[in-house]
Amino acid sequence: MGEMLVLGGSASIYLAKSISESLNARFAPLDTKIFPDGEIYVRIPINVDGKDVIIVQSMYRTPNFFLIELIFAAETLRELGARRVVGVIPYLPYLRQDERFKPGEAVSAKIVGTMLGARLDKIYTVDAHLHRIRTLKEIFEVEVINLSIISELARAAIKEFGLNNPILIAPDEEAEQWVEKAAETLNCNYIVLRKERIGDEEVSITGLERITGVALIIDDIISTGGTVAEAAKLLYERGAERVYVSAVHGIFVKGAEKRLFGSGIRGVLTSDSIPSPYSKVSIAPLISNILRKEL
Amino acid sequence: MGEMLVLGGSASIYLAKSISESLNARFAPLDTKIFPDGEIYVRIPINVDGKDVIIVQSMYRTPNFFLIELIFAAETLRELGARRVVGVIPYLPYLRQDERFKPGEAVSAKIVGTMLGARLDKIYTVDAHLHRIRTLKEIFEVEVINLSIISELARAAIKEFGLNNPILIAPDEEAEQWVEKAAETLNCNYIVLRKERIGDEEVSITGLERITGVALIIDDIISTGGTVAEAAKLLYERGAERVYVSAVHGIFVKGAEKRLFGSGIRGVLTSDSIPSPYSKVSIAPLISNILRKEL
Amino acid sequence: MGEMLVLGGSASIYLAKSISESLNARFAPLDTKIFPDGEIYVRIPINVDGKDVIIVQSMYRTPNFFLIELIFAAETLRELGARRVVGVIPYLPYLRQDERFKPGEAVSAKIVGTMLGARLDKIYTVDAHLHRIRTLKEIFEVEVINLSIISELARAAIKEFGLNNPILIAPDEEAEQWVEKAAETLNCNYIVLRKERIGDEEVSITGLERITGVALIIDDIISTGGTVAEAAKLLYERGAERVYVSAVHGIFVKGAEKRLFGSGIRGVLTSDSIPSPYSKVSIAPLISNILRKEL
Amino acid sequence: MGEMLVLGGSASIYLAKSISESLNARFAPLDTKIFPDGEIYVRIPINVDGKDVIIVQSMYRTPNFFLIELIFAAETLRELGARRVVGVIPYLPYLRQDERFKPGEAVSAKIVGTMLGARLDKIYTVDAHLHRIRTLKEIFEVEVINLSIISELARAAIKEFGLNNPILIAPDEEAEQWVEKAAETLNCNYIVLRKERIGDEEVSITGLERITGVALIIDDIISTGGTVAEAAKLLYERGAERVYVSAVHGIFVKGAEKRLFGSGIRGVLTSDSIPSPYSKVSIAPLISNILRKEL
Repeated sequence: MGEMLVLGGSASIYLAKSISESLNARFAPLDTKIFPDGEIYVRIPINVDGKDVIIVQSMYRTPNFFLIELIFAAETLRELGARRVVGVIPYLPYLRQDERFKPGEAVSAKIVGTMLGARLDKIYTVDAHLHRIRTLKEIFEVEVINLSIISELARAAIKEFGLNNPILIAPDEEAEQWVEKAAETLNCNYIVLRKERIGDEEVSITGLERITGVALIIDDIISTGGTVAEAAKLLYERGAERVYVSAVHGIFVKGAEKRLFGSGIRGVLTSDSIPSPYSKVSIAPLISNILRKEL
Repeated sequence: MGEMLVLGGSASIYLAKSISESLNARFAPLDTKIFPDGEIYVRIPINVDGKDVIIVQSMYRTPNFFLIELIFAAETLRELGARRVVGVIPYLPYLRQDERFKPGEAVSAKIVGTMLGARLDKIYTVDAHLHRIRTLKEIFEVEVINLSIISELARAAIKEFGLNNPILIAPDEEAEQWVEKAAETLNCNYIVLRKERIGDEEVSITGLERITGVALIIDDIISTGGTVAEAAKLLYERGAERVYVSAVHGIFVKGAEKRLFGSGIRGVLTSDSIPSPYSKVSIAPLISNILRKEL
Repeated sequence: MGEMLVLGGSASIYLAKSISESLNARFAPLDTKIFPDGEIYVRIPINVDGKDVIIVQSMYRTPNFFLIELIFAAETLRELGARRVVGVIPYLPYLRQDERFKPGEAVSAKIVGTMLGARLDKIYTVDAHLHRIRTLKEIFEVEVINLSIISELARAAIKEFGLNNPILIAPDEEAEQWVEKAAETLNCNYIVLRKERIGDEEVSITGLERITGVALIIDDIISTGGTVAEAAKLLYERGAERVYVSAVHGIFVKGAEKRLFGSGIRGVLTSDSIPSPYSKVSIAPLISNILRKEL
Repeated sequence: MGEMLVLGGSASIYLAKSISESLNARFAPLDTKIFPDGEIYVRIPINVDGKDVIIVQSMYRTPNFFLIELIFAAETLRELGARRVVGVIPYLPYLRQDERFKPGEAVSAKIVGTMLGARLDKIYTVDAHLHRIRTLKEIFEVEVINLSIISELARAAIKEFGLNNPILIAPDEEAEQWVEKAAETLNCNYIVLRKERIGDEEVSITGLERITGVALIIDDIISTGGTVAEAAKLLYERGAERVYVSAVHGIFVKGAEKRLFGSGIRGVLTSDSIPSPYSKVSIAPLISNILRKEL
């Protein structure tokens, strides 16, 4: 194995720094600027010739910007002679559109996957949103390691919120895989609710008659917070005393906090795949451990 | 004193919730939406007639949006019969332009101050950026209580970063008032550096020949991070072993993290006047304590 | 009457220049900048002491930014000794929320109206969206002159699209007042369609069994283009040969062009109250004529 | 040649429609949406199997969004069996960074060129910003036809502004190639000014002692308007009576209109490669003519 360097894209500067410290590797942020006309400028600020380079870039909220920045960086790293270019992409967007549901649709998962797969030697991600496809190999044309922070997150939620044997809740069927794993870790019971879409941004949650005690909602992604907030409202209506939520990726857009705390949720906890005030469980140790072994 | 309610504007939902819990008061987020044409819709979701209403809205990054939302809410609270409308505005923008430096300039501090002062009965803020004017009464036409979180922040930095008798650094003369207070709290020495503006977004920092050991930069605001990063570079050049930074308000725009961690800074700590992954010192107890006494 | 100056806010630089030329008055753009932290800086670049100042600022797409800029400028003009400060605000936003439809709602029309009314001596606007209230005096606390460009727009559409006795179409009942005026100008027949909202951004249009020939849709505002596009689809389904649209204010957000031209509309024409490639009918003569008379 | 279809990306809906009309070909806009989390959804709304598809997408102001949309569409067109996929990209961004000026820089021209070249069979563009490289073949790995609208633009400026034998002005040396062509078309004299960069967004223009009469500045791109505005100020200082400007691509960002009209410029004229109120010279005939011949 050659010398290892860790670069941080503008989405994940601090996370990259944390990973570099765990690995005892040199760290540098990408030198990225935006020109007045919207063009992105990217510069690799250190010598990478012959080195193994880990580039960290989570792709949340402005995924197109972060994607182009990452492509510019990865392509340049190869040109500059990096021995290997490994991508750490904690939040992988564009995974929902993994087939053509309606005629004419772009299968964005596959297109983005190919663009990244062609420029990276290997990709590490965290709790990728896979509910139809079984593996990311179908999408990327390169090896993708899908790590899970769910167990650490579940344990941290118990501690952070001072919970004692809560009932775990999957707000919809897609979330079952995550709640199942959390329940195993915590040795708790879990319930799966049912979601129906009503309109573009509205959902209705059902599937529960009566509940007592404290509930902890578990999910992979919180985006607008609509699904989780509706689940919390149902839980309170049916008797829950207190409701908390823990999710891997906290995108938090379009008034998510208003919805979450307006529904009576007591606490929110996420990983730092997407940095926010709620991102108190770091994925850096998980990623550093596997990088140390595999690279 | 009447019944107290705490409302959270879209900038400060979680902070408002924390303050309401300390005060044992009812909490609700403003029901705020943005229409496709850019107009803001605001609704007060609870009955406020005859109540004392505390509305929490920090005004960072998109200050004009947050300002209009706050004005809409405050005006509506009065119309709906609130007994008192108290604004908690932890980060108060527009304070730099407190006089007409060049002919024809809008004195935005005064204009914004008047707009808020006319709609709020009292304002609480935290470490307001006052370097020329002595009090906020000259700007707002209502009582403004300017609290300081600097002591708590300094103590938290020592603990978070594991520091032992660091040298405190004011990156420029405007920061002296904050570093002075922190030095008193920690019983440390401090140094004040000198800043010169070179171009619109570039600065040069001087004022130090030789330093040893660990340095902790103290400031009120980190915006692009340029000033702090240049100070850190100087400190490392002149012999500092490790450099940390702690500031009250972390705006973090235009690649601030790249600048901060690219300069070798080891750790960043701010208050939660502006929520971010670095906002680990909460101003909620400080604000709740005074609200409990004064209201 | 004193010497007259015309200032252009950043929304309406070119329109202000055109008006100044018609009036043979001095023109200057506001010197407006945005700081990295989002704060707006405004400077009046010419001496205004004792002068009659006309400030032109249409408030489309980013209405909160343009509103704050206008407030900063108007307030500063008074402080600098302008004899009169007249606002030309061709597109006046926030007029829909002119009462409290649901408990707790901010009546934004009134709040914005008061903020502007307090700082301007008189306001000129164009085809304001008044469908419930009769006059703008109820909203602003200052005289507001509501001009109409509908007749010029209707005549220009006939010429631009080469039409010969088209049927005019109001896509919904709120548009009737505009189509009525256009029909009178052109001596044409008109039809009023019926709109129902289905969900937040979707509408359904009905009210027509059979139509022949060429249709020209007339409206005051095109925002997302949804209403007009649905009207056009209905018209084509029921037999229309060609469909065109002409509206006063073209906001064009969230994929409006895709909707409009995807529905088969042949041509779009608006006034330059909001600048765009479709804004080919200038309101400058209309405004200059009345300013010349009234000031 | 197979049946021809013209698709419009969200940057160029109207231009695509105009081109389709000249070619007598079927037109459809891409069905593009943005999800709350920032992901782009693209759908090809018509059957393209076996067809020759022309996709029109100029990439201005938000080039990364438009680039991803175009890549999604082009890739999908191939998958859906389009016989040929031809890109019409009137404004091609990212051409400045065509080599590694400083160590470590991403050569974005080449990376973007390769991404597009791999998905399009041929590309048509207009007055591409080539000042160092000779041909676009070095950048794209596919044939790129670089058309010029300069002659039409120069003639239109003369007519629009009512000019009679103006002196043409290149505001800097990079603009010489465009002013030379315009001078040939109009049989006019021209002058080339000298630009020096002072700071990130500021420039100084020199190179002229004395001028009389009317000047028409010619350039390929207007971005912030800084260069053109400084040139106009110099021209007025040295005796010009009136100054106009005509450029191919009007990006107009960061207060360009304030700078242009604040400098005393009388009129601005661009092509519709980028739609704006100033884009009065259509490139549709130029593009349609060559497509008719070559496809």
